[in-house]
Amino acid sequence: MSAYTEMNQEALQSEYARVSREYAELKARGLKLNMARGKPSKQQLDLVSDMFDLMQKPEDYVSDGIDVRNYGELAGLPAARRMFADILGCRPEQVFVGGNASLQLMYDTISKAYTHGLLRSPRPWCREEKVKWLCPAPGYDRHFKVTESFGFELITIAMTPDGPDMDAVEAAVADPAVKGIWCVPKYSNPDGIIYSQETIRRLAALKPAAPDFTIMWDNAYCIHEFEGEYVEFPDMLAVCAQAGNPDMVFEFASTSKVTLPGAGVSCFACSEENLAYMEKLLGVQIISFDKVNQQRHVLYLKDKAHTLELMKKHAAILGPKFRCVVDALDREIAPLGIANWSRPKGGYFISLNAMTGTAKRALELCKEAGVTMTGDGATFPYGKDPADSNIRIAPSLPPVEELEQAIAVLCVCLKLAALEKLLA
Amino acid sequence: MSAYTEMNQEALQSEYARVSREYAELKARGLKLNMARGKPSKQQLDLVSDMFDLMQKPEDYVSDGIDVRNYGELAGLPAARRMFADILGCRPEQVFVGGNASLQLMYDTISKAYTHGLLRSPRPWCREEKVKWLCPAPGYDRHFKVTESFGFELITIAMTPDGPDMDAVEAAVADPAVKGIWCVPKYSNPDGIIYSQETIRRLAALKPAAPDFTIMWDNAYCIHEFEGEYVEFPDMLAVCAQAGNPDMVFEFASTSKVTLPGAGVSCFACSEENLAYMEKLLGVQIISFDKVNQQRHVLYLKDKAHTLELMKKHAAILGPKFRCVVDALDREIAPLGIANWSRPKGGYFISLNAMTGTAKRALELCKEAGVTMTGDGATFPYGKDPADSNIRIAPSLPPVEELEQAIAVLCVCLKLAALEKLLA
Repeated sequence: MSAYTEMNQEALQSEYARVSREYAELKARGLKLNMARGKPSKQQLDLVSDMFDLMQKPEDYVSDGIDVRNYGELAGLPAARRMFADILGCRPEQVFVGGNASLQLMYDTISKAYTHGLLRSPRPWCREEKVKWLCPAPGYDRHFKVTESFGFELITIAMTPDGPDMDAVEAAVADPAVKGIWCVPKYSNPDGIIYSQETIRRLAALKPAAPDFTIMWDNAYCIHEFEGEYVEFPDMLAVCAQAGNPDMVFEFASTSKVTLPGAGVSCFACSEENLAYMEKLLGVQIISFDKVNQQRHVLYLKDKAHTLELMKKHAAILGPKFRCVVDALDREIAPLGIANWSRPKGGYFISLNAMTGTAKRALELCKEAGVTMTGDGATFPYGKDPADSNIRIAPSLPPVEELEQAIAVLCVCLKLAALEKLLA
Repeated sequence: MSAYTEMNQEALQSEYARVSREYAELKARGLKLNMARGKPSKQQLDLVSDMFDLMQKPEDYVSDGIDVRNYGELAGLPAARRMFADILGCRPEQVFVGGNASLQLMYDTISKAYTHGLLRSPRPWCREEKVKWLCPAPGYDRHFKVTESFGFELITIAMTPDGPDMDAVEAAVADPAVKGIWCVPKYSNPDGIIYSQETIRRLAALKPAAPDFTIMWDNAYCIHEFEGEYVEFPDMLAVCAQAGNPDMVFEFASTSKVTLPGAGVSCFACSEENLAYMEKLLGVQIISFDKVNQQRHVLYLKDKAHTLELMKKHAAILGPKFRCVVDALDREIAPLGIANWSRPKGGYFISLNAMTGTAKRALELCKEAGVTMTGDGATFPYGKDPADSNIRIAPSLPPVEELEQAIAVLCVCLKLAALEKLLA
């Protein structure tokens, strides 16, 4: 099979006829498959459901002398704070342990900046003329939506294999209206890249015009290798402090993809001064988050070393799924020269760049054939991919046999969309 | 013992000497007792901790075909929505089931009104010149703090034995800056009164100048009788709808004092149109709340009838504590004519009105003697009780034997503060 771009009109026509028949056959199967979201599979949920056996002995209800069943401990159980500090490499006093969703903690951080201002804010952001926000893209649609929902102007920053384009970031923060940036520093969503040491150093050393510029450091996949060994990663709180910017970063993490997506435990970490400030605001909103579930997680995960052992079991489930997708793309698409894709070793996504101007059409075709994918443009601010190229593949949910079918459909749709474009 | 107000100076002096000695003796005991917050006791927590035995069979993880362990179902498990609808007397489609804290849901409602506006808002409340809020007082300090934290002007509305002074409410809502009112309609915090049918009818029939005026109907104690039978209570959503104001009310409830204070399940209920609007905003903040805990509650509480059986067991623990407090007050304070207090049949508080100008001093004396009480003024907007009279007693946490000591201390402190005042 030669590359589509090297084929003449006649060869393209005959390939188009062939691929159209393939597509019609796949469509006739009436599939109903989903590669839309980074949802763990039933196998992963079953893997950890022995955690429900915990919390049955009266001594389990007490942690550091605290009855975990009653009100109190706004910042979370000390034992849960220690556990997350161990995982993230920061200090327990820097950690606030919340409910089941780190997205909620991120939203609330932005929301409180908007309604009350952050520690270094001259005023609440709702009193600013304009707020702008840096969005490395492709990135996570839910991040972008949070800042969009507060009316911020989203500024696209190109992603490189080392992380956000730091020249662009450094130039952008000279504008005092630029208040922050979204980052998924390890196994970024969706590219799966790890920010380089140099990118991290330059981010921590930023000298933004806005005194309350905030790095939203969503370390969602901090221990989420599915191939190879655990990769050490710097504690961004310490790096920022060393660079003279201790209050510039809020780090987020959760056990959503360690234990249970709907019923895990989330946290944020920041300077102690930031934490004291945030606690004052959070204390008006809630007396305490669910400490029973925090304690259940402390008993189940114990510490970083023990948690990394569990992550190897998740990896044994996830690894084959990612290999299945990449293998299919290598086999079916690589020779055609119509797309390139990431080969991550961790995280939950594969990022594919289809031939410019064909992503939307390929995803339409997928949908018609019963395969639900992340919507086109979702990885860009305002849901608009200027090149109409990026497709986020989420292989975690379907069993391998379904995944094989789903990726076969995607490959055919990528071909068909490219052929339509080349023949147009 | 005759009333202090009828004693002459000499009798007061001798009583003062006697009570001072009593106080000194109590203080010397080095007590450490707490009647500050409406926290359930360890006995109540133990009563429900068999709920941790649930969620161990694979079939428990599935509810209406939904795997409760994964992401999804923003508005909560259908079964949890049905359960709360049964308890509140509304329809499941009107119910949103959240995390462990109804305070968080209330805060988020106000916060979203501030940042985005509610369904009927002409603009977000942060864009209003001024927002005013009605606070029936004595009331719940955490309610007042939420609206205070957003810079609203808090307007005190007098409480009557039938609920808020409705003449004052009706007059106040003619001001378009008045955007809402806090209500604890059944066993109000702290008075323990039940709003009368007439109060409810007049609230539902309000014709506020603000199109987005909102009744925050915190039905925190909807099934929380500790004496006598369960008291039926109208569904405020239906009453408002009948009065032509379907979107004027948000109702809140939780299992914090049914199962576990730190690890229960909360909900809000509102018109379906309101719910659709709120879901759009909430969907940016969170993918879904903890459905495993929702399912645990569905399996444990089952329905209203079964939950009411559990509440009788809580009543058996709480009832004697409330009687212990009221009996001590009847015995020690009633003859002196220096205070009056409520005799609630449900809820978590007793509201005591000390002699004008003595509450702060009495609470100071309590603290010095090792008894922590709700701070003076806490039951009024801005923490300021103009009469310096109201004291909120929370008898739920201490065991009866400790409670007897704590209330003995309070009685002596009430006497001492009154005597100091009468002798000044």
